[in-house]
Amino acid sequence: MAVEYAFGIDIGGTTVKIGIFTDDGKLEDKWEIPTRTENNGEMILDDIAASIREYLEKKEITSDKVLGIGIDVPGPVLGASVVNKCVNLGWGVTDVASKMRMLTDVENVQVANDANAAALGEMWQGGGQGHDNVVMITLGTGVGGGIILNGQIVEGNFGAGGEIGHMIMNPHEKQACGCGKKGHLEQYASATGIVRKANEVLSADQRESALRRHKKLTAKDVYDAAKAGDPLALEIADFVGRMLGLACARISCVIDPEIYVIGGGVSKAGDILLESIKKHFVEEAFHASEEARFALATLGNDAGMYGAVKMVL
Amino acid sequence: MAVEYAFGIDIGGTTVKIGIFTDDGKLEDKWEIPTRTENNGEMILDDIAASIREYLEKKEITSDKVLGIGIDVPGPVLGASVVNKCVNLGWGVTDVASKMRMLTDVENVQVANDANAAALGEMWQGGGQGHDNVVMITLGTGVGGGIILNGQIVEGNFGAGGEIGHMIMNPHEKQACGCGKKGHLEQYASATGIVRKANEVLSADQRESALRRHKKLTAKDVYDAAKAGDPLALEIADFVGRMLGLACARISCVIDPEIYVIGGGVSKAGDILLESIKKHFVEEAFHASEEARFALATLGNDAGMYGAVKMVL
Repeated sequence: MAVEYAFGIDIGGTTVKIGIFTDDGKLEDKWEIPTRTENNGEMILDDIAASIREYLEKKEITSDKVLGIGIDVPGPVLGASVVNKCVNLGWGVTDVASKMRMLTDVENVQVANDANAAALGEMWQGGGQGHDNVVMITLGTGVGGGIILNGQIVEGNFGAGGEIGHMIMNPHEKQACGCGKKGHLEQYASATGIVRKANEVLSADQRESALRRHKKLTAKDVYDAAKAGDPLALEIADFVGRMLGLACARISCVIDPEIYVIGGGVSKAGDILLESIKKHFVEEAFHASEEARFALATLGNDAGMYGAVKMVL
Repeated sequence: MAVEYAFGIDIGGTTVKIGIFTDDGKLEDKWEIPTRTENNGEMILDDIAASIREYLEKKEITSDKVLGIGIDVPGPVLGASVVNKCVNLGWGVTDVASKMRMLTDVENVQVANDANAAALGEMWQGGGQGHDNVVMITLGTGVGGGIILNGQIVEGNFGAGGEIGHMIMNPHEKQACGCGKKGHLEQYASATGIVRKANEVLSADQRESALRRHKKLTAKDVYDAAKAGDPLALEIADFVGRMLGLACARISCVIDPEIYVIGGGVSKAGDILLESIKKHFVEEAFHASEEARFALATLGNDAGMYGAVKMVL
């Protein structure tokens, strides 16, 4: 039988990543196009459809060989179809699946939130491979999350499934999270949050630390210093692990997953991060869930494309 | 077409509740038998099978009219079949579904944890009716929980799905929860926890309060006094509502349900409880989830039977 294809498309605020996969799930080719957010992002889907068409023509792939198109977006999605406003793209409520069907004549179009798609991708071919019940936590500028139960994305009734960056950790926090409320996980475990915590500790604590040598501290500096044994950096790293371990313990008493997959820029810290999350998780989790596993994500920035295409394969 | 039947069976530590339902989900008849926990509970399933047989003979219902048997137990269940130890019944790891099939010759047997079954029952014919994504919280001696997503019980990978009584709320708590760890929701929002908190407040605070007139305070006394406007009782009720509202806010950023159904003895307090949970939930929840609804359970002690039978109908 001839090979068939599907597209996995990850729409970000500045670029759209387009991947073409064979029907056995191999990434055959990938490229990027700019995300044109002007005029409320009205050209974004047209640009994607044009790019797909152009690629198929160039490679002489006929449209009956296209099994489907999976798309993820940086906003809440309902019914694997409708984006419920997406500030980064300039979109209001938009039925992305219907529009894409019209633009491409491909019937099988599915849409997901980007963090949820990344979780599905990591379950399928990344750090969560071999598991059906996966929680992915992406530690970047913010903290993203995606929940997969029985191999399916948990969208949530209001599109907020997996929004664990907004789990309240400290009801006494004075500073506001990006969402406007206070004390959320994102404020302590994102790259930004880690730097904020480090600067607080450096102001309040007089001890010498390698961290004082940096003009503009980054989360990577904190973990590098921690790996080198710097006591202050180790304390900060432990604090971050405790916040994430606590959050995972709370997630486990809700959905009790098999595995947590940790991704995003901060996850490049590697084992030191993973081990500190796990240590605090085991301390805080309900006993039945203590055996849950922790792994690093492996698909990097391609995770969204993988998860997007998985929905249509 | 002749009516067909199914059984919903709720196995508790002292009695087994047996319900026979018609295929359209009407509870036709119900009765109880004692739970014989002696000899590691080896007779429990035989007793149930005998009681079913006896009933069918008496009513002249032939076995081909029995569509299935749903069972719930007070312990973790895996694969809707195997109970992973159940201290209250004296059971080790027990394949309840297979045993019941053998004892009754009924092929369609499904098993669930009791709190999960109650959640499914309330979704089907109780306080969560009309909704597919339901969280039920049972406030009794302990705090039980059950999660329904897309109409299905979330069992969890280690059988701990919906164990929200063991969500950590206060990492600084000195006293231990029944599970051995510290600071869990159950320690603040169960009937026992509410009384403990009330006694702490009454010792620490010198204000006059109707609560001081009770020799042995109950959670009901606290809510009765709160309804009568007693300031101390109102503060305790607000504290309980805050703990539950916070827990629900955390649950919402994981699975983002449509509705929370509150049951168990404490829920007889009614609106005063519901309103205080909702108030704190809205304060603490991620904005997208703020519209989640709150309702009281309506099936009382029959919820488990309803949920059990729902699994096989």
